[in-house]
Amino acid sequence: MQYYPESMNRLIRSLCRLPGIGEKSAERLAMHLLQAPEAEVSMLAKNIGELKKQVNICSSCFSLSDAEKCRICRDPSRNASLVCVVESPPDMAAIEKSGAFTGVYHILQGLLSPMDGIGPSDIRIAELVEKVVAGSLREIIIATATNIEGEATAAYIMNQLKPFAVKITRIASGVPMGGELKYVDQVTLKKALEARYDI
Amino acid sequence: MQYYPESMNRLIRSLCRLPGIGEKSAERLAMHLLQAPEAEVSMLAKNIGELKKQVNICSSCFSLSDAEKCRICRDPSRNASLVCVVESPPDMAAIEKSGAFTGVYHILQGLLSPMDGIGPSDIRIAELVEKVVAGSLREIIIATATNIEGEATAAYIMNQLKPFAVKITRIASGVPMGGELKYVDQVTLKKALEARYDI
Repeated sequence: MQYYPESMNRLIRSLCRLPGIGEKSAERLAMHLLQAPEAEVSMLAKNIGELKKQVNICSSCFSLSDAEKCRICRDPSRNASLVCVVESPPDMAAIEKSGAFTGVYHILQGLLSPMDGIGPSDIRIAELVEKVVAGSLREIIIATATNIEGEATAAYIMNQLKPFAVKITRIASGVPMGGELKYVDQVTLKKALEARYDI
Repeated sequence: MQYYPESMNRLIRSLCRLPGIGEKSAERLAMHLLQAPEAEVSMLAKNIGELKKQVNICSSCFSLSDAEKCRICRDPSRNASLVCVVESPPDMAAIEKSGAFTGVYHILQGLLSPMDGIGPSDIRIAELVEKVVAGSLREIIIATATNIEGEATAAYIMNQLKPFAVKITRIASGVPMGGELKYVDQVTLKKALEARYDI
């Protein structure tokens, strides 16, 4: 790393801290930034610097927001009695992109993971129970990941919500659309067979 | 992209302009920056913003430098009569990492590429000829890439320097160390056979 000027090395070190960016990529990005138009580079620096100041957490769903409540929670056309529970804002974004959901979200901001010391009080489960206690919810769709942490979190939430008169559902597992059966793992195939439907 | 606050979308758009970063990676980087410690994020923004202001071009070898001359050109222990000609600063860094070169460099800042409208006057060839004319150089090693542009540039430089009493060499081509012959392309194998040496 002593082959570049110090300001270049500083940037390469900063970029190396980003996820998925190794030393070679950082070097390439830094060379690109050095050659890119001044306006583009200062815009990137400004956008990074201002991000944390401008992004808030929505007081209702705990997603990212630029106001006290996020766009989706403010939208009167969304069905506020249908709540989709997800781990993080990118999961919410993925469901929004599908266009298949018209309710609102509840972002857990994490999944239960005893190995990493993350217990129920570290994620937004109490806030979800509060929403249910306050009433007027019709259905809770638990859309956490289908890995160990996601399944454990879904099971825990189901237990917590059982005493209340609210419908609780889990997103379906099965063969991904466009997928070939020979490439699908056995657990997924088992789930897909169990959840088979009449045609 | 309407699933995130506007400041987040702005950052994702800026990150998407970087080489090798698509929308998914940009989203992941932005989420990381949102959760990263304030000090790390503002350091990254600062390093990006200051890069262009602080990095100069060495007046001697045209590499990147934080002063008028770069570290290598300032180093009295380097052999200034042995010049390695490369395309760009990352090529120089790669050779420096090998530790096999004790001379100085000449960065062309590009390769001849008529298809892209890059001719001899667009890269630092005249400056190399000037150095040779000024005398006191013993050997010029042409270490441009072994692709079409690199070979064409090497041939052009060799022609330009032929009239002068300086030794001109080209880095060797052959089978990469640790490489298996069955995976090496035919042109490289031909070069490796032609350049075979006694053992």
